[in-house]
Amino acid sequence: MPSSPIRKLAPLAEAAKEEGVKIYHLNIGQPDIPTPQKAIDALRNISRTTLEYSPSQGFLSLRQAFSRYYSRYGLDVDAEEIIITTGGSFALLFTFMSCLDPGDEIIVPEPSYANYFSFARSAGAVVKSVTSRIEDGFALPPVEEFEKRITSRTKAILICNPNNPTGGLYSPEEMEQLRRLVLDHDLFLVCDEVYREFVYDGAPYCSALGLKGIEDNVIVIDSVSKRYSECGIRIGMIVTKNSALRGVMMKFCQARLSPPLLGQIVAENSVDGTAEYQEKVYKEYLSRRDFLVEGLNKIPGVFTNRPGGAFYTIARLPVEDTEDFCRWCLSDFRYRGVLPGGETVMMAPAAGFYSTPDLGRNEVRIAYVLNKKDLARALDVLERAIKQYLAI
Amino acid sequence: MPSSPIRKLAPLAEAAKEEGVKIYHLNIGQPDIPTPQKAIDALRNISRTTLEYSPSQGFLSLRQAFSRYYSRYGLDVDAEEIIITTGGSFALLFTFMSCLDPGDEIIVPEPSYANYFSFARSAGAVVKSVTSRIEDGFALPPVEEFEKRITSRTKAILICNPNNPTGGLYSPEEMEQLRRLVLDHDLFLVCDEVYREFVYDGAPYCSALGLKGIEDNVIVIDSVSKRYSECGIRIGMIVTKNSALRGVMMKFCQARLSPPLLGQIVAENSVDGTAEYQEKVYKEYLSRRDFLVEGLNKIPGVFTNRPGGAFYTIARLPVEDTEDFCRWCLSDFRYRGVLPGGETVMMAPAAGFYSTPDLGRNEVRIAYVLNKKDLARALDVLERAIKQYLAI
Repeated sequence: MPSSPIRKLAPLAEAAKEEGVKIYHLNIGQPDIPTPQKAIDALRNISRTTLEYSPSQGFLSLRQAFSRYYSRYGLDVDAEEIIITTGGSFALLFTFMSCLDPGDEIIVPEPSYANYFSFARSAGAVVKSVTSRIEDGFALPPVEEFEKRITSRTKAILICNPNNPTGGLYSPEEMEQLRRLVLDHDLFLVCDEVYREFVYDGAPYCSALGLKGIEDNVIVIDSVSKRYSECGIRIGMIVTKNSALRGVMMKFCQARLSPPLLGQIVAENSVDGTAEYQEKVYKEYLSRRDFLVEGLNKIPGVFTNRPGGAFYTIARLPVEDTEDFCRWCLSDFRYRGVLPGGETVMMAPAAGFYSTPDLGRNEVRIAYVLNKKDLARALDVLERAIKQYLAI
Repeated sequence: MPSSPIRKLAPLAEAAKEEGVKIYHLNIGQPDIPTPQKAIDALRNISRTTLEYSPSQGFLSLRQAFSRYYSRYGLDVDAEEIIITTGGSFALLFTFMSCLDPGDEIIVPEPSYANYFSFARSAGAVVKSVTSRIEDGFALPPVEEFEKRITSRTKAILICNPNNPTGGLYSPEEMEQLRRLVLDHDLFLVCDEVYREFVYDGAPYCSALGLKGIEDNVIVIDSVSKRYSECGIRIGMIVTKNSALRGVMMKFCQARLSPPLLGQIVAENSVDGTAEYQEKVYKEYLSRRDFLVEGLNKIPGVFTNRPGGAFYTIARLPVEDTEDFCRWCLSDFRYRGVLPGGETVMMAPAAGFYSTPDLGRNEVRIAYVLNKKDLARALDVLERAIKQYLAI
């Protein structure tokens, strides 16, 4: 597996940190938002004396809590149709290993979450990309582009909605196009919906779990990580109504014995009774998005869409190669303002999210997981960095 | 992947439980021993407000704690040489995926932990078994038996020491034979040492980490699950001095982002300052072993060795097919003694631990993870079950 560009930047960030430089991390999806207190309290009040294995499918009580969660979205999901995994990561890996044989193909709109490539490769499968473009607001590519890539080895289409890294949201019309495509070609539709909570501007959200007539084709990847700001507990899930497929997935789940016990306790105490928390978090991200998008578009030469969901956006910068620029920000650029050690920004060069060579070279992914005060500083520092870089 | 025989028994056990039958679980490796209070207290006193991602390799402080742990065994392991995984399970899966290409072969003494087959198959690899026998006390098969199975596709030898399911302990002489074999044929030696703590009768323990001259060939799989009775936290590790191999393994670790945060907190608070706990647990297992082995060998027609480690033993029963017998114990047999719902035992038919067909058909694996009072009842119930089964 190739190293992602973010990973290549990590040692430079380490060095800058040791030098005393303040780095604004626009590169990662680790929210600064607190986990619900109710969930932390459940840990603090734990009365177990033996931290024993939990069931391979995950606690029934947790799966029932998720079933109630889905019903609040008008989605009918039985606890039996949920498999708890160690984060969304292993939900993806087990899905790929269960649906794809070595040599099978999966079609994914790019730019896309870089680890999709890693997990597909682990399953011996081949990713075929269809390109979505910043000029089109990263809308779903035309259905003909998908069809062009369908071969006898194509087994699945994978989308992320709302999207990491673009922040794009697929409309009900786009989801209907995918529904027809999947039906016509009898493919799996794997839908990564871990950012379901973050849909802005009153836009309608169409979960793949609500698509009629392809119930056995749909596999939803979900996770509590971003929703409740608890990425560290490693609790994700696979949701599918296809019971034969769940049978195959359960073989992998049984081999790895059980998902994390403590994470399940935290997750179960996050799902119910946290409406107020969610409302607050939602408003915070919404206001950050507006603040960030406005700020970015004010920087000369920078362009970004106003993304409809998640907490990322892709921005086009007035540089030729963002890998070089992002590296330079960490290794050379220091804004000497108020802070004695200087300040800089860390961003994810977007080329790593494309599998087509040379795409996204002037784009970066920016995560708005910093508070607005820090976001404001980061925007200021970024503007200065671009100016200085262009003057070299 | 085939279902293990234990999994096939699970629905019968469920049904018996619903019927009100008391089942003595001799089938599983889930200890009844409490987790160290110090580790539980660390959870109860958690002061984090955001349960965020941890580093992909695992917390440095945890890896340093393990480094100190190994040094107490005279083993020189640097924190850099340790990769924290989600249980020993993913330590195995990532090891197989990193060392083995599809079609590669790995030689494993049988009977062996059934999930080795699952993980090898996930990596597309082929397991070749060499048979160890109850009559030989499950000693390491002669080195010639390994050599007979080595082909150009052979990449690794995998052992479990002390052994699950046999309880066998490999002697320093046997480990020296493996060292030479690995050196002569330039193979990886994957050594599952999760039961390292449980070595009885003052026998010397030879960790693969102490073998000289094959440092780059050795990969040790380790876990806190059994050692501190915290199977549910899912914290295991890979230890290898081979830095190139660690580089490959880290790609998988980065793709899955991070190991469980909360489990790492529990593990770190289990490793140091628990000598007294360990001493107590050790003595408990030792006395259970002696009690169980003596009790089993007193049942007419039953034979078991006195295993040198872990908390399992393989027993030969006076029945033709233990799969049938174990099924019958759950579905038909109820000892109507003191308890109103009746009592029975659940054991793991040993055939599932052999890959050679027809081996182990009159053997079961018995775990001594019950207290002695329950073990005594279980032995009594087992004796009655055998008698009644033979009389049918």
